[in-house]
Amino acid sequence: MIYAQVHLTLPPWVHQAVDPDTVCPDDASKVALAIRLAALNVERRTGGPFGAAVFTESGRLLSVGVNRVMPLNCSVAHAEMMAFMTAQHRMQRFRLNEDGHRFTLATSAQPCCQCYGASIWAGIDRLLIGARAEDVHELTEFDEGPLPADWVGELTRRGIEVVRDLERDAARAVLAAYRDSGGARY
Amino acid sequence: MIYAQVHLTLPPWVHQAVDPDTVCPDDASKVALAIRLAALNVERRTGGPFGAAVFTESGRLLSVGVNRVMPLNCSVAHAEMMAFMTAQHRMQRFRLNEDGHRFTLATSAQPCCQCYGASIWAGIDRLLIGARAEDVHELTEFDEGPLPADWVGELTRRGIEVVRDLERDAARAVLAAYRDSGGARY
Repeated sequence: MIYAQVHLTLPPWVHQAVDPDTVCPDDASKVALAIRLAALNVERRTGGPFGAAVFTESGRLLSVGVNRVMPLNCSVAHAEMMAFMTAQHRMQRFRLNEDGHRFTLATSAQPCCQCYGASIWAGIDRLLIGARAEDVHELTEFDEGPLPADWVGELTRRGIEVVRDLERDAARAVLAAYRDSGGARY
Repeated sequence: MIYAQVHLTLPPWVHQAVDPDTVCPDDASKVALAIRLAALNVERRTGGPFGAAVFTESGRLLSVGVNRVMPLNCSVAHAEMMAFMTAQHRMQRFRLNEDGHRFTLATSAQPCCQCYGASIWAGIDRLLIGARAEDVHELTEFDEGPLPADWVGELTRRGIEVVRDLERDAARAVLAAYRDSGGARY
């Protein structure tokens, strides 16, 4: 039999936990939402300690994502990937900013090698990051994988602005909470 | 409204075109299947000119993938990603080789930056490649994106063997056919 489909889902709690009319006007509040999603994903035991969200230029929430690798048996289902796919599904286009509007991804931790590459195709203009890769390595057993040496410059040259260390302490706290809960590697 | 799911599908023709009992004993025949999938995807106009397949150690076909970016409005839906996700869904595990068995991905063209990163998490032991990145650049308008300078070495160090230039002429022919058909960028 040929397996010809996959169905990727966010946890049911997102409907209660996230107000679809959320507006996050500044960078820090966007990342704070991504971190809150990561924390809830740990608390509810619905995936790894990572969250992400896509916003429009005015700060309106477009989509959310959390890590779903283990629950869905899918190594692709990182938080950033889920946020990109649900945003594109909502907008019905495969490159979010193809109409000239600007979109922002906020993520609780630096994208791994997979999500880094995906960020280049998704059609975002800004990438807002909470925890650094070294925080992830220090506090968890996750591997972020190999990136281009000048990974920030490669994004900048493609029109994607990178802002790091937003709410970094709060982002680190979620990773530590995950570690202390004895969480598996997702 | 929070969009909480995505449904990713391969084209219906895969059920007719692919024998689920396929065994490809050698490297070249594995890549040849990936190239045939790419060619069919162009012919049927169901996505971009890229195909991929996952095989078990004995050469038994486990899953297939084709590029579905434009039909599904999903920048994640590259051929390799579709093949990884359907293989993991079939095996019900997020890292294919976690039980010690070995798995191979064959792809019609060198993985882009997204699929490169995904290959590191998917649980494969061998990566078989048809066309080179420079073939893709020469024959189409696709961008492969930024990779680590020593991208092959990074894979090798993580236990993933890379074999290139398998059926390269046939792989190039599909890219040229796509170009000549006036295909859009996927």
